Amino acid sequence: MEINQLEIQVRKHMNMICDVSAATSVLSWDQETYMPSGAAYARAEQTSTLAALIHQMMTGDTAKKLSDEIQDTLQQNKEVSALAKLFLDDYSKACKLPEELVRKTSKATSLAHESWKNARQASDFSLFHNSLQELVELKSEAAELYGYAQDRYDALLNLYEPGLTATELTPVFQTLKTATIELLQSIEPHKEKVSDELMLRRYPQEAQLAFSAQLAEKIGFNFENGRIDLAAHPFCTSFSQYDVRLTTRVNEHDLGPCFYGVIHEAGHGLYEQGFSSDLARTFGAEGASMGIHESQSLLWENVITRSEEFWHFALPYLKSHFPDKADGVTPRDFYKAVNKVQPSLIRVDADEVTYNMHIILRFEIEQMMINGNVKIADIPELWREKMQTYLGIVPENDAKGALQDIHWSFGGFGYFPSYTLGKLYAAMLWKRIRHDIPSIHNHIANGEFSHLLQWLRTHIHQYGRTKKPSELMIALTGESLNSTDFIDYIQHKFADVYR
Amino acid sequence: MEINQLEIQVRKHMNMICDVSAATSVLSWDQETYMPSGAAYARAEQTSTLAALIHQMMTGDTAKKLSDEIQDTLQQNKEVSALAKLFLDDYSKACKLPEELVRKTSKATSLAHESWKNARQASDFSLFHNSLQELVELKSEAAELYGYAQDRYDALLNLYEPGLTATELTPVFQTLKTATIELLQSIEPHKEKVSDELMLRRYPQEAQLAFSAQLAEKIGFNFENGRIDLAAHPFCTSFSQYDVRLTTRVNEHDLGPCFYGVIHEAGHGLYEQGFSSDLARTFGAEGASMGIHESQSLLWENVITRSEEFWHFALPYLKSHFPDKADGVTPRDFYKAVNKVQPSLIRVDADEVTYNMHIILRFEIEQMMINGNVKIADIPELWREKMQTYLGIVPENDAKGALQDIHWSFGGFGYFPSYTLGKLYAAMLWKRIRHDIPSIHNHIANGEFSHLLQWLRTHIHQYGRTKKPSELMIALTGESLNSTDFIDYIQHKFADVYR
Repeated sequence: MEINQLEIQVRKHMNMICDVSAATSVLSWDQETYMPSGAAYARAEQTSTLAALIHQMMTGDTAKKLSDEIQDTLQQNKEVSALAKLFLDDYSKACKLPEELVRKTSKATSLAHESWKNARQASDFSLFHNSLQELVELKSEAAELYGYAQDRYDALLNLYEPGLTATELTPVFQTLKTATIELLQSIEPHKEKVSDELMLRRYPQEAQLAFSAQLAEKIGFNFENGRIDLAAHPFCTSFSQYDVRLTTRVNEHDLGPCFYGVIHEAGHGLYEQGFSSDLARTFGAEGASMGIHESQSLLWENVITRSEEFWHFALPYLKSHFPDKADGVTPRDFYKAVNKVQPSLIRVDADEVTYNMHIILRFEIEQMMINGNVKIADIPELWREKMQTYLGIVPENDAKGALQDIHWSFGGFGYFPSYTLGKLYAAMLWKRIRHDIPSIHNHIANGEFSHLLQWLRTHIHQYGRTKKPSELMIALTGESLNSTDFIDYIQHKFADVYR
Repeated sequence: MEINQLEIQVRKHMNMICDVSAATSVLSWDQETYMPSGAAYARAEQTSTLAALIHQMMTGDTAKKLSDEIQDTLQQNKEVSALAKLFLDDYSKACKLPEELVRKTSKATSLAHESWKNARQASDFSLFHNSLQELVELKSEAAELYGYAQDRYDALLNLYEPGLTATELTPVFQTLKTATIELLQSIEPHKEKVSDELMLRRYPQEAQLAFSAQLAEKIGFNFENGRIDLAAHPFCTSFSQYDVRLTTRVNEHDLGPCFYGVIHEAGHGLYEQGFSSDLARTFGAEGASMGIHESQSLLWENVITRSEEFWHFALPYLKSHFPDKADGVTPRDFYKAVNKVQPSLIRVDADEVTYNMHIILRFEIEQMMINGNVKIADIPELWREKMQTYLGIVPENDAKGALQDIHWSFGGFGYFPSYTLGKLYAAMLWKRIRHDIPSIHNHIANGEFSHLLQWLRTHIHQYGRTKKPSELMIALTGESLNSTDFIDYIQHKFADVYR
């Protein structure tokens, strides 16, 4: 086959797979937002069938023929596109799993999601036990089939962060753990200086949603190609770069979950909306990795919208949505309120300093699960022990402990480290951004976010998944993954917050 | 293959097709309810890919093998299940269309839907012209491929009402037209006796939705397996009998569109929720025909909830949702207000008497389109002429004329007659129901709908599509399609309303 013809055929085949994959995402989004409760079983059948179809298309005769041709072309030392290389990688990976396992896993995750919801509502881990057991077994089987050098967990970690190993990650996390404990100790004597009372006033639901959507639009989220809905858990999903869905939740006595939920997910959404149009309906229209994806959400959520400059800009908007809530309040008051450091039970509500401890805890427990070093029934107790050790607090029930997160219910073992990777990447990028856009702090204070967004579009978003995370980071920062910039960032920031 | 084995294989193959078909329905529902505007083109690609996949599964090697086996079995005079027969019918039908046509039609309808929305908003038929032209051509091509005895239109009519021809339908419609004109003339001198002012007071949106949902639940719609959302056009779609979605719209100065929109769609929804669980994920989990489906919505909407007895039951609920709106009002006042007869421009807002004139008009224009007897550009003018002749009024713009309905934008030529068939079937069924449940009028007045629902479940719903419409109607009424019962019903009802 001519190379041009090959590239066209590869793209066409990816188009079909991406369309079915998008349909699967619509079904999942619907399940999280609007689906009636009695439909869970039927929905599980549907997503399982789509997963099987995708797997068939990923591994069937057409895919094999195209992959063989790409390999032949490469062996002749001819160039193929980045998309063709992605196709070859994904084909090889897909071929490692038999269709029956894919179908079983899809159905098991769909049903586990329901049992997790019930278990969390009843705060009873035992209701989730069997589902989790099944998912650990299925994912361990998948890890064996994917293969790994050293640690079975790496095979799953690589699904989210290509190329990274637990062995590399462990010392990075160790340094971070030590620095975090030191920083927490240095904050402790000053903890009375910061109160989040300002965020805990009564903020009516409709106004919270309107305020959050307005600010998401200000930072650049395009509502012609996206929307926000309510869900139990904030997330961002996309059905193409032209249809990006965010969700959030509202607590009328805390502005944080809704507003920062929206901004965080909008950060993901800006990445999804920013892929080159040339990548539409291809395997390139995804983030470079979950860690890079998370760097985008955290850059906006933490670095930008938890800065003092941001609140200079945002306060008048807040006052217009909540006329009576912020009389006599200064931007610095809000800056301090949204940066209160306090060990807490719920990961998604944690501050920038303690957050990583939640991730390290999950990383350690996940590794044990996948390596068969802990009984599923013992997880709640293990969780309580680690919370005591790392943050000095213990959840009074499983809903606030091992049941709080959705991730294990969709079999996402290996996903959690992405959150901390995102923080580390964001700090590395932020150093470079301040260098490239010296007036960035003024821009933020004036609500001019287009320079920053343009920078992200140019250097990160447009490439989607056609560049590897390490390739992107080394090109932009000259360095590979480390915690130095992040530790530097939180030390300076929280010295200022607690000065 | 053993017959048992064959039945299992057929069911398994239907399961996969039904799952993908359900996914397509989720994508369409989302497009109508929540999808951001900029996503239309990407969504069209996605639904087109799913349509192509369904077509491949309907006509591929597996389907061929199973169909051959069913045919062999039948030729040996052995029994096969009703589902296997449906599979054979649908296989034969699907094989008549090449995949390319299916894909093109799916994409064209997705895009036509957007251009129809724009055209209707701008009230400019020319914006819809090219899309409609393309759909007429694609559907005419499909009709030729399906084949027909006499009239090309029949091939499309049969997609909605299996076995019916335009030749049979024309005299039924003729009788109905004559009786309608006579009834309208007999009402004319008394028209001042009925006012709908009661429905045109200000009813706030949230309360309309709550009242409508409450009454939908009272008649038996199960919200564990369904929900109601807002959309430009009321419709009912289902992703399985466990997930039935209704939509409605709200005019705060008219209670009718929301309330009767919900009840009408809930009537469809009760049918969908009532299929035997044995039919889940099979070709049997559909209505017997569009006409039978419509008989279910219209029975609830017109016969039940536009009766005087119903308003005896419903008025206290209405008063609780709208405390100040119905002081001193009697059930008979509401009964009259919701049965005002008046020629009007919009089909979905028409009363029971004039409604069929809207359908006959569309039936005549559709036939001309599909038979190539009218230029697309001339449709708005033809519409105005027929409105003048049949109802004595003329739309002042296309939005209130030929652009008012969604149906042609999804290529649904042959669909419109179903609405009037539904009225005729509903009246035929109603005669039998009054015979079988003599105290039905008391039940309605007391809000006891379970006997009626049980009757419908037993005699109609459970069978889904495993019985043909004529088979169902003859078994239940001893008669084939006619307009006698309906004419009798409207003559008596409106003599009472206008007495």
